[in-house]
Amino acid sequence: MQRAGPSSPSCSTSDCFPLRKTAECGSEHSVEPEKHEVRAAGAPTGLSRMWSVVSFYICYLLCLGLSLACVVCVCLWNSQWRGGFAWDGSALQFNWHPVLMVTGLIALYGNGAVLYRVPLTWGQNKLPWKLLHATVMLLALILSIVGLCAVFDFHNAKKISNLYSLHSWIGIAATALFAIQWVVGMAGFLLPCSPMSLRALLKPVHVWMGGSILWLSIAACISGINEKLFFVLPGSANQAYADLPPEAVFANVLGVLIVAFGLVVLKILSNREWQRPESRPEDLAYTPLLQEENE
Amino acid sequence: MQRAGPSSPSCSTSDCFPLRKTAECGSEHSVEPEKHEVRAAGAPTGLSRMWSVVSFYICYLLCLGLSLACVVCVCLWNSQWRGGFAWDGSALQFNWHPVLMVTGLIALYGNGAVLYRVPLTWGQNKLPWKLLHATVMLLALILSIVGLCAVFDFHNAKKISNLYSLHSWIGIAATALFAIQWVVGMAGFLLPCSPMSLRALLKPVHVWMGGSILWLSIAACISGINEKLFFVLPGSANQAYADLPPEAVFANVLGVLIVAFGLVVLKILSNREWQRPESRPEDLAYTPLLQEENE
Repeated sequence: MQRAGPSSPSCSTSDCFPLRKTAECGSEHSVEPEKHEVRAAGAPTGLSRMWSVVSFYICYLLCLGLSLACVVCVCLWNSQWRGGFAWDGSALQFNWHPVLMVTGLIALYGNGAVLYRVPLTWGQNKLPWKLLHATVMLLALILSIVGLCAVFDFHNAKKISNLYSLHSWIGIAATALFAIQWVVGMAGFLLPCSPMSLRALLKPVHVWMGGSILWLSIAACISGINEKLFFVLPGSANQAYADLPPEAVFANVLGVLIVAFGLVVLKILSNREWQRPESRPEDLAYTPLLQEENE
Repeated sequence: MQRAGPSSPSCSTSDCFPLRKTAECGSEHSVEPEKHEVRAAGAPTGLSRMWSVVSFYICYLLCLGLSLACVVCVCLWNSQWRGGFAWDGSALQFNWHPVLMVTGLIALYGNGAVLYRVPLTWGQNKLPWKLLHATVMLLALILSIVGLCAVFDFHNAKKISNLYSLHSWIGIAATALFAIQWVVGMAGFLLPCSPMSLRALLKPVHVWMGGSILWLSIAACISGINEKLFFVLPGSANQAYADLPPEAVFANVLGVLIVAFGLVVLKILSNREWQRPESRPEDLAYTPLLQEENE
């Protein structure tokens, strides 16, 4: 079923990205300040549209590449330098912690966050993409919780206190906020009983909290990698870390990759030209799953 | 001199915040999706406007209060538990480092970033506020550079290597990006020779980079506080930190306050209802200082 009408015209991907116009797409979101300013400055409209497509795909490829690089690097660091993996209360169990946190809270989370920005998802029914967004985020949340279990188990086996460092406070806050965000998002945007007015109020909070959780996770990862390197490369007056052996350089580069990934995700999320046009009332309202499937 | 006309109507603070309307303010920025959605949901317009004012001032007061709390806490931590301040190559010189970085890169920077969101600055000539924004940011940059000098001097005096930890890599990257951002911002938005088309292209990059620098600075602060506590509270197997003595709790709370401040600043920056209406061409164009002063 295709929806059309003055207030909600149908809007194919090719119409809407990046060629969408206010009147055509029926979305007040699509009045973009950047585009307006470029036009005001007399830049060729066709050229700026072409640049918008090219720059989106550059950013999206960077996003995918950097997230993959982060996961590969954190696995290599823990397998090559830290002895690999086990689930036996030893240091090898701890090694699951950085791998699962970086994979869940950073790589999967960031890719789940930018899902709606992919033009392929536009001009189509939103519900399947909502379900995919919720599923990717649930997988990210599960990996993060298992990552926390790994470090709690290791600490308990070694009689080390839990949750004393600032790294642990920020990390547990990020995961707890993520869990709340997922539950509230599920209840607010996917349950049929959730009213449209609630969705409209929730959405800006969901978007702001989504970006904030990513940055909290990045702060937790940076402090965690830093702390781990001081633990495992102590030497005399931290000389082993200060000498920057290959492991230190490799793990520092992992931290830089995580930050670069965060910057690219934030860039994608903040660019209004790349937002899915969706202020149509029926995008906020609930549509029964069966009806959506039949469209 | 008051500007008026169909394309650039004058727009007093009371008109524009939060009562500004697309047609009245002549700004395409002022088509706010959140507001649109709330209206679509049938919420009372007057009530949502009132809530917009109240919630802005709550956030702004929180922003001011949290930045003040961060500065007070970092000063207290270093004076009460770390022995105070000196500039003699000793550990007392190092103590300037966290104080100046938190004051410059976090408190001043965050407050400088939200300056344009204060309704008092709307409906007035933008140039004095641009100059204040640039001045606050320059002060923040100077404090950050002096903060870096403090730690480099201390390291050199104690024959400790510089720039080996991930904390130092992220911190130096944040300060370097901040310096580039300030110079490019000054050249792009304040110099008379900068063309309007360049300003239009620069602005979204300036806004995105501005938020990213704040989050990089927060990540650097969190990893720095965490690292410092492991250094000064080592004990056996980090037991002194794990026992959470008053200093550890106090410094951890400082980290939490810094994160809370970042969340509030990001909330203020991301809310489109609180943005200064400024897509009028003359807001992007250069106006000679003398002319601005005479308005």
